Amino acid sequence: MATTNSLPSTLMNFEPQEFSPIRWNNGALELLDQRLLPHQIHWISYQDAPSVAHAITDMVVRGAPAIGITAAYGVALSAMAHRGTLSSEDLTPIMADITLLSNSRPTAINLMWALDRMKLCLLKAVAKHTAIDAIVTALIEEAISIHQQDIHFCHSIGDHGADLLSPNSTVYTHCNAGALATGGHGTALGVIRSAFTQDKISQVFAGETRPWLQGARLTSWELQQAGIPVRLVTEGAAGHTLKHNSVDWLIVGADRIAADGSVANKVGTYNLAILARHHNCKVMVAAPSSTFDLTIHQGDDIPIEQRADQEVTHYQDIPIAPEGVSALNPSFDVTPADLIDAIVTERGVIERPNREKIAAHFDS
Amino acid sequence: MATTNSLPSTLMNFEPQEFSPIRWNNGALELLDQRLLPHQIHWISYQDAPSVAHAITDMVVRGAPAIGITAAYGVALSAMAHRGTLSSEDLTPIMADITLLSNSRPTAINLMWALDRMKLCLLKAVAKHTAIDAIVTALIEEAISIHQQDIHFCHSIGDHGADLLSPNSTVYTHCNAGALATGGHGTALGVIRSAFTQDKISQVFAGETRPWLQGARLTSWELQQAGIPVRLVTEGAAGHTLKHNSVDWLIVGADRIAADGSVANKVGTYNLAILARHHNCKVMVAAPSSTFDLTIHQGDDIPIEQRADQEVTHYQDIPIAPEGVSALNPSFDVTPADLIDAIVTERGVIERPNREKIAAHFDS
Repeated sequence: MATTNSLPSTLMNFEPQEFSPIRWNNGALELLDQRLLPHQIHWISYQDAPSVAHAITDMVVRGAPAIGITAAYGVALSAMAHRGTLSSEDLTPIMADITLLSNSRPTAINLMWALDRMKLCLLKAVAKHTAIDAIVTALIEEAISIHQQDIHFCHSIGDHGADLLSPNSTVYTHCNAGALATGGHGTALGVIRSAFTQDKISQVFAGETRPWLQGARLTSWELQQAGIPVRLVTEGAAGHTLKHNSVDWLIVGADRIAADGSVANKVGTYNLAILARHHNCKVMVAAPSSTFDLTIHQGDDIPIEQRADQEVTHYQDIPIAPEGVSALNPSFDVTPADLIDAIVTERGVIERPNREKIAAHFDS
Repeated sequence: MATTNSLPSTLMNFEPQEFSPIRWNNGALELLDQRLLPHQIHWISYQDAPSVAHAITDMVVRGAPAIGITAAYGVALSAMAHRGTLSSEDLTPIMADITLLSNSRPTAINLMWALDRMKLCLLKAVAKHTAIDAIVTALIEEAISIHQQDIHFCHSIGDHGADLLSPNSTVYTHCNAGALATGGHGTALGVIRSAFTQDKISQVFAGETRPWLQGARLTSWELQQAGIPVRLVTEGAAGHTLKHNSVDWLIVGADRIAADGSVANKVGTYNLAILARHHNCKVMVAAPSSTFDLTIHQGDDIPIEQRADQEVTHYQDIPIAPEGVSALNPSFDVTPADLIDAIVTERGVIERPNREKIAAHFDS
């Protein structure tokens, strides 16, 4: 690989000790193709930012923290790819790649957070060094650091969240906020994993999460691998399940949290929060603090990605609806803070979140 | 067909003037295979009760009223098939077939209602006639009459329900309570069809209804054929859709209604009723009065069919979850009366249903 030939070998590889859907291998980004799970374990290698942006749009990788980490590596790849032509006076190619990456999906704010952090790192490096190699090195180091930090944060989230659970808890989760959605361990599943090691989990219900079936394909797979008892349910069966199974906590991740504590997460989360409240089941949102977007005053201002009808009208390439029928396919929905009992970040727990408590969470 | 050679030709055929998924053709029952819709229009012919019972279990036909009509024809076929050996003193073979049919699916009470009506017809015929042909004739006439009456009732339900809607209504429906679930016209979709002809419907949202996708495959197809504007939504997107689209009415069918007004219907209905209440969307249950089971005191006593995990873990034969993962697959759920604004039957409307109003509905 010509672009990496003079980089120190410690910058060429990062593979976390625990399972991660993202790895940095010989100066290339490798993503576990989540579209093929659980039936195929297939890693795809990326060496430039545009293909990384495509991978995010196409959902090779998904989950807000994982998207952020992936985009950070995308910037590192951009710097490596443009190394021959880049100068500290002209950062145009790398800034164009950052724009491309930032447009790859609209809702998850961790994407913007990670790109902002990479931009800041770039500007600092440019201010400090004139040698391009030093700038490239700084960006690779920053991407790896974002990845490492995410895993560390997930364990903190897991510990804080597990503290809220009583022994023998029955929990319900939606979509996949697991190791596969993060750098490792997971957010919602991080809480479940941590609580399970403390003997606090007796049963997990996983919503299958149409149309992409992340619950069926990813969450049930992750929990099965971890030996955590899991039963799959369709979204339609959620009310019946909550009514008849004494579910203690609904535990979900988040793609963006507004300043008022409204949570954008995978579509179906809002339904579940309403159903949970109706059945005296508590609601926990587990996410790193990078998921907060304090520039968004209220939940209704969070941009909601609308995806193609085809994702609803077809399963893989098989039509499941008549030709020509249109579908509404919002990828996310917004759960207002008054339906949430706790937001758990790496910093700690915000109980019954509101604007003031969220501001205080970041001031401390 | 040896078994029908001496029956009058008027008893050999009944095909409704409007679309019906059930027809009586040359002394055989024909069912439109709903498992293959909307991609294939395939009719299957049945000439004996055991195969009709299988068709109900296997969901060739589904929808509470349609199951009842099918079972009634099943009894007629039983009488025809056993004609050579049947005697007015020994009704064992036909009673065995009735038991078989009654066990084909547990939740829809219309099945029991139709079989009770056929049993009563049988006993009356036996009391009146000694000739087997007269008994067989009476049973065929009764099955056709149940079918005709169901279509007539659906139109009455449609008219009563449409009266509750204002012009330019946006409605949401779940599963399929359409022509395909009845003898023709439909219950929930009967209301929507009737209201549409009165220019009262501006938009229908149809929940896709996992795991069998009756909304995607059947309801969107029926509405598309009728030129009624329909958009498909996943169950997970219901809350988001109700919040952002000013939906006036949730209109659903029913499989069994208890004496207290609790409604068993396709799983997901209970969720939608809670979500509708949360969004000031009214809830209408449209069903013939044969759907009431006044022997069931309260909703929790309605038997809920649990179907195979495979229906959730696989799409057709394609696995969509890891091997060995279990699923919770209740086919129905129960919506309590306090979440329902109106139950509409062929007799009229029960607004804000309760035990007393339901008793009065049947006394009048």
